[in-house]
Amino acid sequence: MKVLVFFVAIVLAAWHCHGSDHDHDHGHTYQIFPLRMKTGHGGHYIPEVSCQSWRLGVEAHNVIDWKTVPQDCEGYIGNYMLGEQYRSDSKIVNQQAYFYAKTLNITAKTAWVFDIDETTLSNLPYYADHGFGVELYNETSFNKWVDLGEAPALPESLKLYKKLLSLGIKIVFITGRPLDQKAVTATNLNLKLAGYHTWEKLITKNTSEYHGKTAVTYKSTERKKLEEKGYKIIGNIGDQWSDLLGTNTGDRTFKLPDPMYYIS
Amino acid sequence: MKVLVFFVAIVLAAWHCHGSDHDHDHGHTYQIFPLRMKTGHGGHYIPEVSCQSWRLGVEAHNVIDWKTVPQDCEGYIGNYMLGEQYRSDSKIVNQQAYFYAKTLNITAKTAWVFDIDETTLSNLPYYADHGFGVELYNETSFNKWVDLGEAPALPESLKLYKKLLSLGIKIVFITGRPLDQKAVTATNLNLKLAGYHTWEKLITKNTSEYHGKTAVTYKSTERKKLEEKGYKIIGNIGDQWSDLLGTNTGDRTFKLPDPMYYIS
Repeated sequence: MKVLVFFVAIVLAAWHCHGSDHDHDHGHTYQIFPLRMKTGHGGHYIPEVSCQSWRLGVEAHNVIDWKTVPQDCEGYIGNYMLGEQYRSDSKIVNQQAYFYAKTLNITAKTAWVFDIDETTLSNLPYYADHGFGVELYNETSFNKWVDLGEAPALPESLKLYKKLLSLGIKIVFITGRPLDQKAVTATNLNLKLAGYHTWEKLITKNTSEYHGKTAVTYKSTERKKLEEKGYKIIGNIGDQWSDLLGTNTGDRTFKLPDPMYYIS
Repeated sequence: MKVLVFFVAIVLAAWHCHGSDHDHDHGHTYQIFPLRMKTGHGGHYIPEVSCQSWRLGVEAHNVIDWKTVPQDCEGYIGNYMLGEQYRSDSKIVNQQAYFYAKTLNITAKTAWVFDIDETTLSNLPYYADHGFGVELYNETSFNKWVDLGEAPALPESLKLYKKLLSLGIKIVFITGRPLDQKAVTATNLNLKLAGYHTWEKLITKNTSEYHGKTAVTYKSTERKKLEEKGYKIIGNIGDQWSDLLGTNTGDRTFKLPDPMYYIS
């Protein structure tokens, strides 16, 4: 009898477990959906579904010009960034980029533009200590992290980088990092991408030239200069839409995930 | 003793249940990630994580020119479309559109472009019977469904539609549906949007004029004609990137979710 009770209990609990798991993952419940995201006022429980929609909205460029991650999504975004979904989401973007690149004709002037932060190098160790984007951006504190020169390479981007190099494509980095971080950035890249030839150029932002200009303007202008030097930009990859919009965007663009910050 | 065993069994099972639920939702496990999606060859188990990445890739315009949903994602996409996530994802896009629209100056010639399929009207009843995009598009069979004129309005888009009308914005529908479906489309819209004034224009595709042209070309040309008639397109919403790219795109564009089909 004891065994029977135990068996029934396990079966019931497992059945319940499967049921709730199913509802949660696949959205089979028809709960009343909250009218708006509860950001900042009173209620602090946000269904996973809302934060997921917020993140999708960011990636598809529907949610723009935001300063911080919604307070109630800190847990969701933290779990996303540290878990397998961020890696998987990055992987598919880089895969699509490679599938595209390998069909093309490559010459000595064929170029591919990479952004740096959250595209080539990861600042996740920094953001994990600063609320995954919930805290307002602090330039001083962020620069201290950058100056360590220890940002890890994003593993899926690194694979793409190596594959593009092996196809004979020239890699050009265009980053919003200022000129005075060029040396530490080059060192960091050398450290983390070491052993795979080298990149063609590392373009950092001349803050006096682009003072008050948006990232879209700065990056468009630098890409234009590249094309004027005879480079043909066949691909362009970044974590911000401002890496990919504007002029001289390249023949095809690839948007890597980044739900932690927004740069216009 | 029986009670104790029962209690322990329940606690253990619930604990296990919570653990696996947590791993599954938040990606805290560090499993080896499959190298590529198993589509069409042998293995038929795809982790939820891959199909989720595929869908994100579609929405952010990284995965393009696909003919069908990957076979192994049929269950995932079906659950997504029928569940609360699709509704929530649509809601946030429409909300952002309204938050944007209400800040603007509206004149008698201020226009907002809506696509129809999966933007204003839903073909989910049809796709639910046809593998949610796993089956290859069948024009004859799809046209039979359209000719019924019974496609429901997408509830979150309907809310936006009403709000834009109440702001005094003119609504222009531009659809890839052919001219010979204009009457049934107008009837369907009248039926499902009834009681909320009326739209400004319903533009269907003149298939002889645009024979062999892409949706991007067709829609850009029609938007250009609108602007030449003096309309100012302040917003443009669609489920396909081909609704939103090209020329005369409108001041801001909004991408609604659609993981079931791709139109270039």
